[in-house]
Amino acid sequence: MALIVQKFGGTSVGDPDRIRNVARRVAETVRAGHQVAVCVSAMSGETNALVALAEDLGAGRPSPREYDVLVSTGEQKTIALLCMALHQIGVEARSFTGAQMGMRTDRAHGRARIQSIDTDALRRALDAGEVAVIAGFQGVDDDGNITTLGRGGSDTSAVAVACALQADVCEILTDVDGVFTTDPGMVPAARKLDRIAYEEMLEMASLGAKVLQIRSVKFAMHYGVPLHVRSSFGKGEGTWVVREEDVMERLVVSGVTYNRGEAKIRVRKVKDAPGVAAGLFGPLSEAGIVVDMIIQNVSQDGTTDLTFTVPREDYARGIELTQKLAPGLGAEDVEGDEDIAKVSVVGLGMKDHAGVAARMFQVLAEEGINIQLISTSEIKISVILQEKYTELAVRALHKAFVEDGAAAPTDERT
Amino acid sequence: MALIVQKFGGTSVGDPDRIRNVARRVAETVRAGHQVAVCVSAMSGETNALVALAEDLGAGRPSPREYDVLVSTGEQKTIALLCMALHQIGVEARSFTGAQMGMRTDRAHGRARIQSIDTDALRRALDAGEVAVIAGFQGVDDDGNITTLGRGGSDTSAVAVACALQADVCEILTDVDGVFTTDPGMVPAARKLDRIAYEEMLEMASLGAKVLQIRSVKFAMHYGVPLHVRSSFGKGEGTWVVREEDVMERLVVSGVTYNRGEAKIRVRKVKDAPGVAAGLFGPLSEAGIVVDMIIQNVSQDGTTDLTFTVPREDYARGIELTQKLAPGLGAEDVEGDEDIAKVSVVGLGMKDHAGVAARMFQVLAEEGINIQLISTSEIKISVILQEKYTELAVRALHKAFVEDGAAAPTDERT
Repeated sequence: MALIVQKFGGTSVGDPDRIRNVARRVAETVRAGHQVAVCVSAMSGETNALVALAEDLGAGRPSPREYDVLVSTGEQKTIALLCMALHQIGVEARSFTGAQMGMRTDRAHGRARIQSIDTDALRRALDAGEVAVIAGFQGVDDDGNITTLGRGGSDTSAVAVACALQADVCEILTDVDGVFTTDPGMVPAARKLDRIAYEEMLEMASLGAKVLQIRSVKFAMHYGVPLHVRSSFGKGEGTWVVREEDVMERLVVSGVTYNRGEAKIRVRKVKDAPGVAAGLFGPLSEAGIVVDMIIQNVSQDGTTDLTFTVPREDYARGIELTQKLAPGLGAEDVEGDEDIAKVSVVGLGMKDHAGVAARMFQVLAEEGINIQLISTSEIKISVILQEKYTELAVRALHKAFVEDGAAAPTDERT
Repeated sequence: MALIVQKFGGTSVGDPDRIRNVARRVAETVRAGHQVAVCVSAMSGETNALVALAEDLGAGRPSPREYDVLVSTGEQKTIALLCMALHQIGVEARSFTGAQMGMRTDRAHGRARIQSIDTDALRRALDAGEVAVIAGFQGVDDDGNITTLGRGGSDTSAVAVACALQADVCEILTDVDGVFTTDPGMVPAARKLDRIAYEEMLEMASLGAKVLQIRSVKFAMHYGVPLHVRSSFGKGEGTWVVREEDVMERLVVSGVTYNRGEAKIRVRKVKDAPGVAAGLFGPLSEAGIVVDMIIQNVSQDGTTDLTFTVPREDYARGIELTQKLAPGLGAEDVEGDEDIAKVSVVGLGMKDHAGVAARMFQVLAEEGINIQLISTSEIKISVILQEKYTELAVRALHKAFVEDGAAAPTDERT
């Protein structure tokens, strides 16, 4: 008997029919002899409907405390309905709001961080043979105020509960079969990964693969909870996200990702002096604009070019602010470009493998694709290129590194 | 400075516009220098929508625990939205779910009874100058399970909070101007009562006047909390429901009510022997059929007729069951009649006034109305008559007792 936490997103519980499907899925796991805690999101569309109500009120920027009271009703609806659906097919189940499961968070409404989970009530339910159906995304602070965890909160709730219960696995049930080497919609040869390391998943998630929320992966990595990303429809194995040493077949490159959601801003001929970068990125940060890549050219004549990328939705504000700041930085000119994409290769194997970058640039050069910016970390290499080359680049890199690429030599551990 | 509890029903908070209206109304009370706790229901239609979701799930008879988890989201939505609306017009406000306000109930999901209210949190909010916006209808049991109070629960919540806070008044804001001597839609001469005693209000409520829920009146009477039933739109005084000794102008008859929601069943020639009534009303009660009036004729030849009334929606079940039981009671025949109405006169004044019944029967006789059944209590007289005579009877009795009727002589106390 294993203790399994299953997480179903808003689409999976989007209407009564789907909730019945989820109930059947949970029932299978129970009947296979496991203890099950299920973490659910609000029914898809529900949160937006609640937010729209607040907007209809003309409440501008509603109180974060009351906003959380409002939106947390979404998950509360789902847990009650899922329990009813489980009862109907003869499965004992009990629902838990954030407060009821002792999900303690800090006081940061709308983006609260989990501090502790008092698992007594959950354990009692599980030990009594009940499925614990828990509301994702929500908790309470020390004074019992309702808080929400913000984007991706339900994944994080599930992982946190799995960790607190010392569950054997946290299953993330979603509408895809697992984590793929690249977008199967773009590259038919993409294949599902059986296993992937937390670190790789983190890079893949932050680079645009939308399967898992970054925060929940960090949580799982920190506490060593195995994640299993699998389809909520099919029954096959999905992708296990585990410790590096538990990834058997290690590829040099595990995945090729792309992200069309950024834009590029270049500040030309700024003074190459201390404080210049701070004078630019400080105000951008204060304006809530998250800068992703930053490249500074080699200085010439005491000036340099600074290029950086920002989320495309912040591009207009970003370039306006940069233009305002440019004279103070001694800059000659500010240029922007929304017509870009970021393409990356990710893989733990490249830590031990020199030459991945060189091979990447060569593959792109062979396709006649010009590289605008490059940034690297230990386990990923990202390049910015013209958006129209996205598919071409992804396909060529996937072919070179995944389809044709040999597995990295396994080290002594495996 | 007074401490005022205001209760707004589902229609008053039925959409964002109305919620803004409620906020303005609350703001006026705050700006008049009072401390205010506001108790709200779910937006009208919301509870039905939630119940429909459970029905779509095919959940037959859903678990009472989960049903409460589901429907309690309705009030939680309202409290958040009302707080936002209050903030928007510069009024400090803080919402409280049943759990957050320490509304402890027993474990009877769907019809829970309030056991205690821990007013610390509410007091802190009020003392900090905040409006406490509380979810009606809901509480928690000793284990933190969400419970709901059942029909009329929001009125009861408001009164209970008023009592616990020792509020100066519990205002029930509704879509009528107050409690009337009879239905103004039927009798244009009906007039609003300035004051009415709890006991009278109880009789009026149970006899069909829909302004206040019986349970909340009982609660208010028990704890001596003055109720003020008033319009949520206008600003005039409504009707105060208070202790008998605080009703200044005491009429012999305070109101004339009618109820078309019952049906009559007659069992003819049952044995006039011990146990016969129990043999009939026991099984009816077990079937969940609430019997209202019971009349037994004077016995003749060792047999008697038993006549009783039941809610019209239970009539079919009631007569079927009675027919099944009749042979065992030695009854000759069972007859039923749905075509009836109950008309009543209510007034504390009739305690000291003989002759009210005689006058009532005389008034009805003058109009040619035949009385089928009579039942009386200290402060009310009810008669059953053919439904088609309802208006005629109500108008005639209102004219005789209210329009033409003198106030009862005040006693030494007033």
